[in-house]
Amino acid sequence: MSGTDSTKPWLEGGPVVILVEPQLGENIGSAVRAMGNFGLSRLRLVNPREGWPNPKAVTFASGADRILDNAQVFPDLRAALADLNFVAAATARERGMQKPVLGADEVAREVVGHMAGGEQVGLVFGRERTGLYTEEVSLADVILTLPVNPAFASLNLGMAVAVVAYEWFKLSSGGALPFQPPDRYRLADKGDLLAFFDHIERELDAALFFRSPGKKPVTTRNIRNIFHRVGLTRQDVATLHGIVAALVEGRQMREARTAARLEGRIEEEPAGKGGAVD
Amino acid sequence: MSGTDSTKPWLEGGPVVILVEPQLGENIGSAVRAMGNFGLSRLRLVNPREGWPNPKAVTFASGADRILDNAQVFPDLRAALADLNFVAAATARERGMQKPVLGADEVAREVVGHMAGGEQVGLVFGRERTGLYTEEVSLADVILTLPVNPAFASLNLGMAVAVVAYEWFKLSSGGALPFQPPDRYRLADKGDLLAFFDHIERELDAALFFRSPGKKPVTTRNIRNIFHRVGLTRQDVATLHGIVAALVEGRQMREARTAARLEGRIEEEPAGKGGAVD
Repeated sequence: MSGTDSTKPWLEGGPVVILVEPQLGENIGSAVRAMGNFGLSRLRLVNPREGWPNPKAVTFASGADRILDNAQVFPDLRAALADLNFVAAATARERGMQKPVLGADEVAREVVGHMAGGEQVGLVFGRERTGLYTEEVSLADVILTLPVNPAFASLNLGMAVAVVAYEWFKLSSGGALPFQPPDRYRLADKGDLLAFFDHIERELDAALFFRSPGKKPVTTRNIRNIFHRVGLTRQDVATLHGIVAALVEGRQMREARTAARLEGRIEEEPAGKGGAVD
Repeated sequence: MSGTDSTKPWLEGGPVVILVEPQLGENIGSAVRAMGNFGLSRLRLVNPREGWPNPKAVTFASGADRILDNAQVFPDLRAALADLNFVAAATARERGMQKPVLGADEVAREVVGHMAGGEQVGLVFGRERTGLYTEEVSLADVILTLPVNPAFASLNLGMAVAVVAYEWFKLSSGGALPFQPPDRYRLADKGDLLAFFDHIERELDAALFFRSPGKKPVTTRNIRNIFHRVGLTRQDVATLHGIVAALVEGRQMREARTAARLEGRIEEEPAGKGGAVD
């Protein structure tokens, strides 16, 4: 999904993301891209297996270079956590620890609350294959996990970062979406709407649409309900008047041609099923 | 994050995911892996650019083969939507259309509601570089977009699928996480807790911890508050008794050694700072 506006300021801040011994630059890069998408800017790497910097990470970060450039590298998790106040450790497995287990949405609420109090927060993600060691999880305040298909619970590292970053950004941005539909035009006046109902009902009458006079009131109500449900604007009503008129004229032209053919003035039925609408 | 339990049944169902002209097998595979993680099983591909099947997609799906095996391929989006009742189209750009614009959480609510009524639902994602054409978006009931950093709004295709699938699964599974902390043990009786307070306060007195007798009541209250906040179980209280005893014995052993050294019975200060806790 594109939509990037490079005139807008890059969002900085949010909790620190800590990747412990990530194995592949691709995964670091794709986690960084997701961080950038969801407004996280602070990355710490604990002993990355392919060394640092990593060209593959740059490729997969797809332009979130500033996050990579500012990444900090630490020899172990304790050092990476030293200046943080509240830490969540991501794991898909139970660790037999008396520690709160929270989903990404609950972690987002904790993060926002702690950061509002001026505390520094970290989100810790483990190795691609083996995750975090239990000893590492024991350094965190809470365990972060996601609701997943138990038969296929292994998330890609970048995906896990993306979901958590998404929940944080959704909460901290108040769920504001990047765009909304164009300003909703004012609904048509009832006078305009009823004039359209008159128009379509008159033409349907003329076209012998209402075959059974007894059912006409019910059918008419149903038709009005369809158009009421749409919430028509004045412009919409004008478009619909045009549609009805065009359909009627198309039918009248067809009828005129049929009459002419019957009188021997033209030879063939025109192609197509009816009057063109556009 | 690992945690897969292959004895659990694979989750089937959920809305159909439709990828329109995906360019890279890697992205198809990574979208499929995310679908599998979050319980979506039905994939439709519209005119995949590298053809189908695609070995790269298999690699990146990391074991979600059954989703790939059951994928359906269509020549265009209209054909892929024909049997669906409600469709959301993902886009990061405004299209000037009078169509509801919903976040992934709101789309999840729509999906659950429509599926509960027996309707078939589709989630449509566009090409990696160019997204969906406006004509394609016009075939959908609602527009799906995500709250993103406006300066870096371009999500990886697999990531976009992951976030939407996550929101659907979170809602439809009632947010149930794959595990919880071990059964919370009953809090300690107050009698046990107060006995521990007596123990630690007695030993702190003996160790001359309370230097100013005037401040002792406040300091004592602060210490009790620390341990109250933890919500100690009976087992925790036993552990803490052991910790205090070990610290005291360590100190007493050290004092005994010091006394012995002064009396000339041993030669050197032992290494280490005190008694081992574990």
